[in-house]
Amino acid sequence: MDNTRPSIAIIGSGAVGSYYGGRLAEAGNNVRFLMRRDYHVVRKNGLKVTSPDGNFTLTKPTVFSSSNEIGLVDWVICALKAISIEDARKLVQPCVAADTRIIVLMNGLGLEERFANWFGAKRIFGGLAFTCINRGDPGYVHHIAHGTVTFGHFQNDPVELEKVVALWAQSKVQVSVTPSLLCARWEKLCWNIPFNGLAVAAGGITTDRITGNPDLRNAARSLMEEVIMTGNTDLAAHHEKIRLNRVEIIERLFRLTETMGAYKASTMIDFMEGRMMEIEAMFGEPLRRSEILGISTPQLALLTALLRTLNEQR
Amino acid sequence: MDNTRPSIAIIGSGAVGSYYGGRLAEAGNNVRFLMRRDYHVVRKNGLKVTSPDGNFTLTKPTVFSSSNEIGLVDWVICALKAISIEDARKLVQPCVAADTRIIVLMNGLGLEERFANWFGAKRIFGGLAFTCINRGDPGYVHHIAHGTVTFGHFQNDPVELEKVVALWAQSKVQVSVTPSLLCARWEKLCWNIPFNGLAVAAGGITTDRITGNPDLRNAARSLMEEVIMTGNTDLAAHHEKIRLNRVEIIERLFRLTETMGAYKASTMIDFMEGRMMEIEAMFGEPLRRSEILGISTPQLALLTALLRTLNEQR
Repeated sequence: MDNTRPSIAIIGSGAVGSYYGGRLAEAGNNVRFLMRRDYHVVRKNGLKVTSPDGNFTLTKPTVFSSSNEIGLVDWVICALKAISIEDARKLVQPCVAADTRIIVLMNGLGLEERFANWFGAKRIFGGLAFTCINRGDPGYVHHIAHGTVTFGHFQNDPVELEKVVALWAQSKVQVSVTPSLLCARWEKLCWNIPFNGLAVAAGGITTDRITGNPDLRNAARSLMEEVIMTGNTDLAAHHEKIRLNRVEIIERLFRLTETMGAYKASTMIDFMEGRMMEIEAMFGEPLRRSEILGISTPQLALLTALLRTLNEQR
Repeated sequence: MDNTRPSIAIIGSGAVGSYYGGRLAEAGNNVRFLMRRDYHVVRKNGLKVTSPDGNFTLTKPTVFSSSNEIGLVDWVICALKAISIEDARKLVQPCVAADTRIIVLMNGLGLEERFANWFGAKRIFGGLAFTCINRGDPGYVHHIAHGTVTFGHFQNDPVELEKVVALWAQSKVQVSVTPSLLCARWEKLCWNIPFNGLAVAAGGITTDRITGNPDLRNAARSLMEEVIMTGNTDLAAHHEKIRLNRVEIIERLFRLTETMGAYKASTMIDFMEGRMMEIEAMFGEPLRRSEILGISTPQLALLTALLRTLNEQR
């Protein structure tokens, strides 16, 4: 470990946090993991990662079981599940000094707003991971699919964006930046809402069954239309200049999904394994915005109602 | 048995066919049951029915295992599940003489049309049972809830309607008639589509959880709106004079459902017990008509896509 390199707290070391934190540690950064389930195993045996970008093991990662022990850092990467957003403030707080920057590496809409309210907007970034990472046995993480991480700054400050790129520069993680974090969040929802939502409500199916079935494909397409319409109105309401290109996005996302084969969307995996699903950040918040903005989203409303009720049965 | 009374073939002696055929036999009619699963048990032990309108047992019902043995009758009551509609023609055919009348006592839209094409329109009636009847152990049928049966004639002929009322006059079954069979079918779909569909897609829930949850209640209401809009356009296309009254129906059906408590809709029971669900007659045909008629039914389309996919997993 090189102490001239930035210190980084990983808050929420599930699959995503462990993988990206692991890559930053591999690159020589001072990474401190907050762990719960795997704390003892990782202290004893280290963290083992399999990945198409190269397997690696951290034999002695710096792991903690409380944020107070982690202390103040240069960067916080919050990789909690969105269902734990209410816990995020108290878990992140002990690591935040005057100059600490925070990356919200979570799924869904409106999470950066929460962090901005808690810690001030200037320090908040969002990260969108286009990839598939699963936990294995305790201490093991499996990075399944190549894929980049897109970062945006909550206030879309280009100088801040350079800083987040520099953070990852030495690592094996492919990163890109977006000039509009809000637009990137909406664009990701254009995939997540149909392909996570239909996969669950249709009983737990892989994405190829959605693209391959005319009824479900139509449903996915009209869900995308509802999301794009709401997203563009939301972007206008936030005085963003960028808009989602309806035709281009729909075509690209279907083409992309068709290359993915029998892919299990993250919420579908949660559903099949009996875990709570990230419904509010991924469906509830977009639906709330459509209602506030007066956009008609009947399919999103129906799907969200079904998913909330399925989640109550977890 | 009184041989001056009409002869009646019950094609499909599940819960519904056994109960209503049983009531007609109890009233002294010459009833012949086509049975499959319970044939041997009922031959040996009779048919036992529990009901709030009075329990009864047919000690020696006339049961057959093929329609050819039943032979020609005055009335056929077809009480197959709608998923067996493709088998209905060959099961009914051997019982049909020149003057035989046929009652389609099944769930869903468009089934009478099929029978009219096969056997001629003049002899076709539809029956809509507003009740709850379940099979018990072999030879047992449990009539759970009071409720009438509404009959209509495929051509809405009032003289024919008198004949179907006369058929039930001596029985303990409460009947009513509708001046428009098509309107009655659509009205029943106003209940069946939201309360069967949402109950299944939300994971198998009772109807009180739909009326009691604001999201699902809204979804049920807007599904009803889609069904009513499609139904009224379909009624106009069929030159029917009657229309569904949107405000009255929605209010009445919610009020009715709220009195039903933790009710298990029939499709929800099929779903929970792993059986094929009656999706095409109850959802697919209404959706097809909305598409033909150019009515926008986004929630019905989404729900039907989900239910079809769930049905593929049976």
